[in-house]
Amino acid sequence: MSEPVVIGMDVGATKILVGAVTQAGDILASRLFKINSETQAITLRSIEASLENFIRDWNGSPPLAIGVGLVGQIDPKAGIWFEAINLPIRSPVLLAEQLSDHYKVHAALDNDVHAATLAEMRWGIGKESMDFIYLNIGTGIAAGLVFNGQLLRGTQNYAGELGHTVVQPDGPLCPCGRRGCVEPIASGGGMLARVQELLVDYPDSMLHAHAQSDSLTAHSIFTAADTGDPLAIKISSDAVQALSIVLINLVNLLNPEWIVYGGGTLSDGWLIEHVRVDVESRPLLMTRKSLKGLLPSRLNPDQVGLLGAACLAWNVNPSGGAIE
Amino acid sequence: MSEPVVIGMDVGATKILVGAVTQAGDILASRLFKINSETQAITLRSIEASLENFIRDWNGSPPLAIGVGLVGQIDPKAGIWFEAINLPIRSPVLLAEQLSDHYKVHAALDNDVHAATLAEMRWGIGKESMDFIYLNIGTGIAAGLVFNGQLLRGTQNYAGELGHTVVQPDGPLCPCGRRGCVEPIASGGGMLARVQELLVDYPDSMLHAHAQSDSLTAHSIFTAADTGDPLAIKISSDAVQALSIVLINLVNLLNPEWIVYGGGTLSDGWLIEHVRVDVESRPLLMTRKSLKGLLPSRLNPDQVGLLGAACLAWNVNPSGGAIE
Repeated sequence: MSEPVVIGMDVGATKILVGAVTQAGDILASRLFKINSETQAITLRSIEASLENFIRDWNGSPPLAIGVGLVGQIDPKAGIWFEAINLPIRSPVLLAEQLSDHYKVHAALDNDVHAATLAEMRWGIGKESMDFIYLNIGTGIAAGLVFNGQLLRGTQNYAGELGHTVVQPDGPLCPCGRRGCVEPIASGGGMLARVQELLVDYPDSMLHAHAQSDSLTAHSIFTAADTGDPLAIKISSDAVQALSIVLINLVNLLNPEWIVYGGGTLSDGWLIEHVRVDVESRPLLMTRKSLKGLLPSRLNPDQVGLLGAACLAWNVNPSGGAIE
Repeated sequence: MSEPVVIGMDVGATKILVGAVTQAGDILASRLFKINSETQAITLRSIEASLENFIRDWNGSPPLAIGVGLVGQIDPKAGIWFEAINLPIRSPVLLAEQLSDHYKVHAALDNDVHAATLAEMRWGIGKESMDFIYLNIGTGIAAGLVFNGQLLRGTQNYAGELGHTVVQPDGPLCPCGRRGCVEPIASGGGMLARVQELLVDYPDSMLHAHAQSDSLTAHSIFTAADTGDPLAIKISSDAVQALSIVLINLVNLLNPEWIVYGGGTLSDGWLIEHVRVDVESRPLLMTRKSLKGLLPSRLNPDQVGLLGAACLAWNVNPSGGAIE
């Protein structure tokens, strides 16, 4: 008899990853689809078609539930996708109900960072800790906050926007309208944009070659900084300072037991290793003593979105209990 | 028949306020005692004597439970006071058990900001909202974070140190060791210290008269700023900018429904009125839309410590349920 699974769908701005995931968090099969996002209707058809295609080809046991991780504003209790910024969702979509009616199983939605944090609670550090921060730095910066074993959602399920923490009041203007947010300074997307902007002032920087060959990444900036490239040093040390401030502020405010991290920008460990000493030594005595450390998430960074979506499904699976 | 009450004790660095409080949050009697804090043993005797005195003179119904709000690190589940900074508590005190054994009623401890936040949950905005921030600015700055109807305690019950959020990385050195924390810029204690430090550079400031007559308060700084005093304008506008940054950061991170405020420095409303426009207009769209506003706490600022302590007692009173 084949192993029980749920279906997870990680819906990004350009791609959808669909997979079948066991209760232990093993991904038995997964497939990547492109998303066609010309209009709201086309976007929704694209999502439905990806799921339909995956399920048609899936030959394991029938899925027990479906979970969908999305961008934008979601009401997870009602299963409604209200709006998105990177996808043209402008009027509310009763997506959980639609999927549930069509496939005759429970379906659940949540935003991608909350979903990843719930996966971290179920399959990661949450097996040992009730009080942790899940830090994700990739294109942007977001955090999942878990206290007393519960995800902090906020009043409209929008908690976690750590990227829009001001760390430099006279810093560069952020698209959000404030100056000196951490996201444009320390996220992968932010660092790449700063390199493009500052290259003209650093004609000898080795980052020119990366930029021309379209191979510029956070990792290439960190490597160039280690070899003494002045532009790379500037960008990466600004990122270290900004991230260090934000994390110490968080430790003082929230008194977490662990910080676990994931996301492409943190995957080579460079940025975290450079903030580690500060974060472990500079918070207030009491909060410092109770912080056990900074750890990489044990969930595969390429799969955490899918695992998050699948976790939503396991959380509503009738045999697994109610929505968290 | 006299109304059922609990006893609350608000233990500060120099004084103890003891009172009898009903389940509706009415204070039927209260009395202020000085605290003698030469050693740990003397401090503890001082606390016990205050309680003994109050109960001896109390002629209402016998108290159902005792609650104590304290400074420092407290384990509310175990009822242990581990240590304090403003009082000489260096080895753990099983205070809840001691009071409970002596008076034959349940007793509970917590730190003062958590206690005030629990009072806000029971008798204030918590009657209408599950997701709010209780902001207290007096000598220092602290916050109580309530989400999904629960107080966020952190792993060692030390969450809430909002004062040690860096808002100006090149700002003045804070006693915590970092630069540019909000507390020395925007707390009452911080603003008074900055006036003392900067008076020499502003020989014409009207704050000299206040400083000489020992009548300098946050309120006198705000009043002087309104009449155009340059030193007062500098101090108060720095405070406005710092507090505004911190509150918008918090709104983006936590997505609260309300911010309620208390504490002596905010009591005349000046500081809040000057940050209100920013806090209501500059967070991210989603978090801004769900913030209903900034409100003064409906709890009397002079009594909130006592109400917090009493709330701890109501929370453990056998007829009122278990420890939150």
